[in-house]
Amino acid sequence: MATGEFDLIGQYFTNKSVPRDDVITGIGDDCAILSVPAGKQLVVTTDTMVSGIHFLSDADPADIAHKLVAVNISDIAAMGGQPAWASLALTLPSYDSDWLSAFSDSLHLQLHRYGVSLIGGDTTKGDMTLTLTLQGFVEQGLALQRHGAKAGDLIYCSGTIGDAAAGLKLLIDANHQALDNNTVNNTNEALLTDTEQGFLIARHQRPTARVTTGQALVGIANSCIDLSDGLASDLQHILNASSRSGGVTLSANVELMALPLSTALQTYVSNALWPQYALAGGDDYELLFTVSSENKVQLEKVLAEHDLPYTHIGEIVSAEQTEQAEQQINYFNDKQLTSLVLQGWDHFQ
Amino acid sequence: MATGEFDLIGQYFTNKSVPRDDVITGIGDDCAILSVPAGKQLVVTTDTMVSGIHFLSDADPADIAHKLVAVNISDIAAMGGQPAWASLALTLPSYDSDWLSAFSDSLHLQLHRYGVSLIGGDTTKGDMTLTLTLQGFVEQGLALQRHGAKAGDLIYCSGTIGDAAAGLKLLIDANHQALDNNTVNNTNEALLTDTEQGFLIARHQRPTARVTTGQALVGIANSCIDLSDGLASDLQHILNASSRSGGVTLSANVELMALPLSTALQTYVSNALWPQYALAGGDDYELLFTVSSENKVQLEKVLAEHDLPYTHIGEIVSAEQTEQAEQQINYFNDKQLTSLVLQGWDHFQ
Repeated sequence: MATGEFDLIGQYFTNKSVPRDDVITGIGDDCAILSVPAGKQLVVTTDTMVSGIHFLSDADPADIAHKLVAVNISDIAAMGGQPAWASLALTLPSYDSDWLSAFSDSLHLQLHRYGVSLIGGDTTKGDMTLTLTLQGFVEQGLALQRHGAKAGDLIYCSGTIGDAAAGLKLLIDANHQALDNNTVNNTNEALLTDTEQGFLIARHQRPTARVTTGQALVGIANSCIDLSDGLASDLQHILNASSRSGGVTLSANVELMALPLSTALQTYVSNALWPQYALAGGDDYELLFTVSSENKVQLEKVLAEHDLPYTHIGEIVSAEQTEQAEQQINYFNDKQLTSLVLQGWDHFQ
Repeated sequence: MATGEFDLIGQYFTNKSVPRDDVITGIGDDCAILSVPAGKQLVVTTDTMVSGIHFLSDADPADIAHKLVAVNISDIAAMGGQPAWASLALTLPSYDSDWLSAFSDSLHLQLHRYGVSLIGGDTTKGDMTLTLTLQGFVEQGLALQRHGAKAGDLIYCSGTIGDAAAGLKLLIDANHQALDNNTVNNTNEALLTDTEQGFLIARHQRPTARVTTGQALVGIANSCIDLSDGLASDLQHILNASSRSGGVTLSANVELMALPLSTALQTYVSNALWPQYALAGGDDYELLFTVSSENKVQLEKVLAEHDLPYTHIGEIVSAEQTEQAEQQINYFNDKQLTSLVLQGWDHFQ
């Protein structure tokens, strides 16, 4: 099934890999052979990106590679892990040397950035589908997980949220050239400087995984998840997993005024709309984590040491406190309980 | 991008996984958490199957799952490894519960057969593309590899070869209902019993990975590869890798009369055609390996103990012996050097 040209695809991915002592054999045999350091456990994640679904069909291949690496590394970061090895399954409709050069240069750049060796993969012909499997290490028994949140925990998130959804909105509007769309959607592209537009679009196309933040949280945070679906959905995952694990019903109180928003996002979207972007926009690749009040000082110290941005946005509460039968998120607007109907990303299109 | 129904796909793959002590956390968090046993190295492989390329577009989902697992396990087998963990990236055009039930039942059955836990993955919407990343263990420093063949090594392969290509030919002919095609292609379906037809088709649709054979070869074989592209191509991989690694030019002498052929294959294809099937048909998932003459007795002993089928088909020779400038395969027909033009699988279509 492979054409002669298709066999050449491998040349873009071999011999440029990050050298690591723990890679005994990389690309080129039936399997890679790897050594896991003593005292470490392995963490493994797989993410697929499909053309037209996870990125626009005319997306820059360098952006696609950047994001493919970042979204996978972000899962390792959420465990407090150190990324190490990647396997790439690349399905492409045709052999396109320009596309492959741009994609592989960007892929190698990102893998070098995070110190990750490309250890193998597969290239096949078909509709553009990219799957990366990433492996990393955590200290034995110390991985951050979703299910450790407890009543009384403080809820934090890193960086700012909602930017990537705004960046995607800008790209879609530019593609559709639907100028009057801005009014309908309560967004205002005209108020943004070029730098702010570039910032929002880059947050969608070229996210950064919070590896250092995740590692700093090991031994301090009770639970952690990366923000891929949007804060509302991902915080619910923490509540569900932690309630199941602890045998108690946990809810969350979140203060909308505390959500960390970039000035670009606040300029771009109306006050009425920014909770949609911040809570349901998705693709943030920030970390959402909970910390007991006892560990608050230690958390602030370690994140300040590394100059890592983070924001306190709410608390985990037990069902006894809230008299709620199911785990849920209660939103407060300047300390007043408020009802919020989140409509998910589709709403933006 | 995920519909509500698409979110349900996960239900087909969770809670049915093989329990293993080394899986600390399986499906359900940002990453799986795994323990590699002391003294073991990790072996990792990734294979993708695309609808219409690697299987017919109307293929039985149970067959697809069977083959997806087998082709990946076969790579672990070729290293002499013990398979352990699998990650599945499943891209599907729509939510089809019948398809998903049949696929996942077969997948779980195969993973159980090899003792492999499904530890994670991703489900996305798009053209049908399936990627499995498989991990296993080898004893520290003892993995079988392609590059260890030496002049004087005896060449062996396990099982029989060419059957899968014949099975695929039967399926394609049945699909095309091109009855007179048989004459053109020198195949004779009418001579086959139903059992023989079923055997050949099963060899294409439901291969078995040679895990026990691979493990038996550890410490005995100098090199090993699994037969996926066809013996001619895969033996060339051994010659190329071993020549590069040893700094000498190695060739292979292969006796056509010694190639292990099933009676079904010999019945189905003419004498003139069977080398095409056996050497270039591909999809055999048998092991091809080389052993020094000193280890011949030990090899025969260990494979006989496990009742594992294998056949001696030739020898590795140095360029000094053959006076050939490049590594190549010399075919002999009853000890007479013969020229053979292999036309690859496309020829069969």
